[in-house]
Amino acid sequence: MTHNLSIALAHHPVQNKNGDTITSAVTNLDVHDLARCARTYNIDTVFVVTPLEEQKRLIGQLVAHWVSGYGATYNPKRREALAGVQIIESMEAVKDTVALRHGVPPKLVATAARPPRETLDQAGLRDLLETGAPVVLVFGTAWGLSPAFLENADHVLAPIHGRGDYNHLSVRTAAAIILDRLLGDR
Amino acid sequence: MTHNLSIALAHHPVQNKNGDTITSAVTNLDVHDLARCARTYNIDTVFVVTPLEEQKRLIGQLVAHWVSGYGATYNPKRREALAGVQIIESMEAVKDTVALRHGVPPKLVATAARPPRETLDQAGLRDLLETGAPVVLVFGTAWGLSPAFLENADHVLAPIHGRGDYNHLSVRTAAAIILDRLLGDR
Repeated sequence: MTHNLSIALAHHPVQNKNGDTITSAVTNLDVHDLARCARTYNIDTVFVVTPLEEQKRLIGQLVAHWVSGYGATYNPKRREALAGVQIIESMEAVKDTVALRHGVPPKLVATAARPPRETLDQAGLRDLLETGAPVVLVFGTAWGLSPAFLENADHVLAPIHGRGDYNHLSVRTAAAIILDRLLGDR
Repeated sequence: MTHNLSIALAHHPVQNKNGDTITSAVTNLDVHDLARCARTYNIDTVFVVTPLEEQKRLIGQLVAHWVSGYGATYNPKRREALAGVQIIESMEAVKDTVALRHGVPPKLVATAARPPRETLDQAGLRDLLETGAPVVLVFGTAWGLSPAFLENADHVLAPIHGRGDYNHLSVRTAAAIILDRLLGDR
């Protein structure tokens, strides 16, 4: 297990098309996809971050169905993946949870398609993980993590370059690529 | 542009949980995600393969909205991605279309989480692409491409290994990882 790395899927604080800070709705497929990615790369926890009680309840029901309800026998591989999902109200609560678990607060590494500041590259992230420090890799929804969050994160990861300038991947696919580049078997 | 490579998202022939050959329904997010991935790696065409007229119509409407309807001005980056989507009724039609375009029929490289035969590795796929031959990389939905399709494809690509044995990624994330391993700026 990559015990000191966890991932967070943030629905707040994220930005809308105009750069305003908003809260986005949770997309079921995001939860499934990121949970399966985390399991594939031996990451223990996927924090699904939303301050909205109704959203927490809905995603809670989805996860419970597949982890302990009928779905658990119907699709054990999905249960295995979704068992790593932790629904939580804020990035502050993520930090507190990880700090309790590891004894020190985590480093937050934000991801962004168009980072507003100097970035940390893959090698730098690997070095950070090798210190054993707890690290949370944070993915934004909607139009990405808010400007304030990106400004205050410990690091912002360098964006994905494919074969040209186009860089508008969904959070599902961006997260998969980032995790594979970091931890994949090649 | 990686002119001789295209990708196909097959809803037939795929298999269900029991290994029977079925036709699955198209998932909107699959189309968006694969279209964006293709654009990121400079792949011209994403074939969305379904024999069902109603499905073809629905996906046609989705693509038309974002490519030539209101959506085209609302989100030009989505338009740019979805402009590469071609909705088509079968893998035979995909082969014919590519053959017309390139003058020779394409090699079909199937993907599978648990390949039933010897596989082609990433290096082998790169070599194949470098010959200039047209290649279609085929992704299955539901529980993956049908046994018969996997048996008859020219090649089956080696599956993704992460950090352990778990290999139950969604088609969206598996496709992203495969394309990035093949074409990404690493």
